Amino acid sequence: MENEAPIADASLREQLCDESFLLPTGVPGVFGYGRPMVLALAAVRQAIVDAWGEPTMTVTEFPAVMSRATLTQAGYVASFPHLVGSIRALPAGAGEPEADGEAWEKALAATDYVLAPASCYPVYPLHSGKLPAAGALVQVTGNCFRHEPSEDPDRLVSFRQLEFVRIADRDQTTSWFEQGREKMRQIGVGLGFQATVDSASDPFFGPARRILSAMQKNDGSKFELLTRVGKRDDVAVASANSHLTHLTRKFGIHTADGEEATSACVAFGLERLVFALVTQHGTDLRDWPAGLGAANTAGTGRP
Amino acid sequence: MENEAPIADASLREQLCDESFLLPTGVPGVFGYGRPMVLALAAVRQAIVDAWGEPTMTVTEFPAVMSRATLTQAGYVASFPHLVGSIRALPAGAGEPEADGEAWEKALAATDYVLAPASCYPVYPLHSGKLPAAGALVQVTGNCFRHEPSEDPDRLVSFRQLEFVRIADRDQTTSWFEQGREKMRQIGVGLGFQATVDSASDPFFGPARRILSAMQKNDGSKFELLTRVGKRDDVAVASANSHLTHLTRKFGIHTADGEEATSACVAFGLERLVFALVTQHGTDLRDWPAGLGAANTAGTGRP
Repeated sequence: MENEAPIADASLREQLCDESFLLPTGVPGVFGYGRPMVLALAAVRQAIVDAWGEPTMTVTEFPAVMSRATLTQAGYVASFPHLVGSIRALPAGAGEPEADGEAWEKALAATDYVLAPASCYPVYPLHSGKLPAAGALVQVTGNCFRHEPSEDPDRLVSFRQLEFVRIADRDQTTSWFEQGREKMRQIGVGLGFQATVDSASDPFFGPARRILSAMQKNDGSKFELLTRVGKRDDVAVASANSHLTHLTRKFGIHTADGEEATSACVAFGLERLVFALVTQHGTDLRDWPAGLGAANTAGTGRP
Repeated sequence: MENEAPIADASLREQLCDESFLLPTGVPGVFGYGRPMVLALAAVRQAIVDAWGEPTMTVTEFPAVMSRATLTQAGYVASFPHLVGSIRALPAGAGEPEADGEAWEKALAATDYVLAPASCYPVYPLHSGKLPAAGALVQVTGNCFRHEPSEDPDRLVSFRQLEFVRIADRDQTTSWFEQGREKMRQIGVGLGFQATVDSASDPFFGPARRILSAMQKNDGSKFELLTRVGKRDDVAVASANSHLTHLTRKFGIHTADGEEATSACVAFGLERLVFALVTQHGTDLRDWPAGLGAANTAGTGRP
């Protein structure tokens, strides 16, 4: 079933829902996952961890919710104010709000919490201060939220990331970033994708967005793994990002020698990878590449 | 290491952080999880799925974010307005907000999304209309949020649930609920807990809360599995809930015969179960009961 004609996005969504990969929840970009999707996500995640092959990594998982102060300190809220979900709740000691939803919403106040737009932000403040000589190497699995409501299955509001994060001195991080970019490409090949790696930029907000994007596209700090999802040929399913001192400075992270540390990460979008696999190999998990053994041995993956 | 003297809650938290079960994020009730916690959560979850033993279940996972309309329709926002996290974001087409966080927060508007306070709410609208003759039987894993900020590790703001949900005619649901309550108790025994099952009530809000709680405690609609976590002897680590027609009526769910359907669920709090295991069996996963094989075979569980 490989490399059939592209599926239109609407029909990809329909197919994913018909075969219980996706369970609609009534709001755009948020889906429950049925058995084939649960199996596929677990298999893809494990295949990437195995292929990444850095067994000394610190293994972590982070929830969908994170500290508002940390995300603000990272500069994310200033650069991407349109993507962040802010969490409000009834303040402690509040009286009973009127029963209707609008009165309730008006009685709420900002909490200490926001939704994580990427999995790795909570990792940096854990390393404030001096790193060990080898630096830090962290695997993060997390749930993310970006407020980009869409009916396209490749543009989810709520999604999962698997990230690998390096925090170290400049030479260590640069070398890791270059290897990571190549490993990202090889993982695409291993998943049987027709994929390319290209320089890219983040979706900045506001009048300076074009300039900021163009600068980033030229400075070699962001590369994406692009492949076919539904009818689009160039969907980013992973990205390698060099932050230089952008985050380490904000969180006061230094090398063992007392120099300013640097950081980089490689992030995989797990749902998009599954949708790319469905597009390029079909919905029967038994037809997927051999590296996805967990899915294959679990049988058909049908619910 | 079983059944040692209780650990005070502060020292339980300290121990969980020292041994990388929990990674602080700077805000109360939200933690990252290190390798031992990742392994323990997966092992506990799998042990419960295996012990539950209903292989015909529809397997699902739901994210932390859900439809505001669904949670309102379920009556949750009216009954527990103090627990719900409402998600705000910049409205489409908004201009650039001022750079500081307060101006940004003021520019936000309510979205279609809230945080799920329990995993099973998105399941009911999926069954609106007529059920098959056997009814529905759904396994749900999900991420939940309840705005109860606390430094106690047994009172998380962000946590995971594994739920089993039955939607069927009254006899089918009643029989399943009674068996489920007993299976919940047996699962506690299987995890090596000194545990009791007791009737319980939900944390209602407002002036009528005492009456509502007392009514629920007497009507046999909610039972909790209580065990020791830290220094507290009676922490609820699971609950069995009979909803009768409370949810099926709101979501228009009928039996194959056209009667009003009923529903029930049994929900396990995965983090609390791990903390109960740590309290009662220690932090070395090799000392945990044999049913937790996945954790045991994965070695020490230390990062």
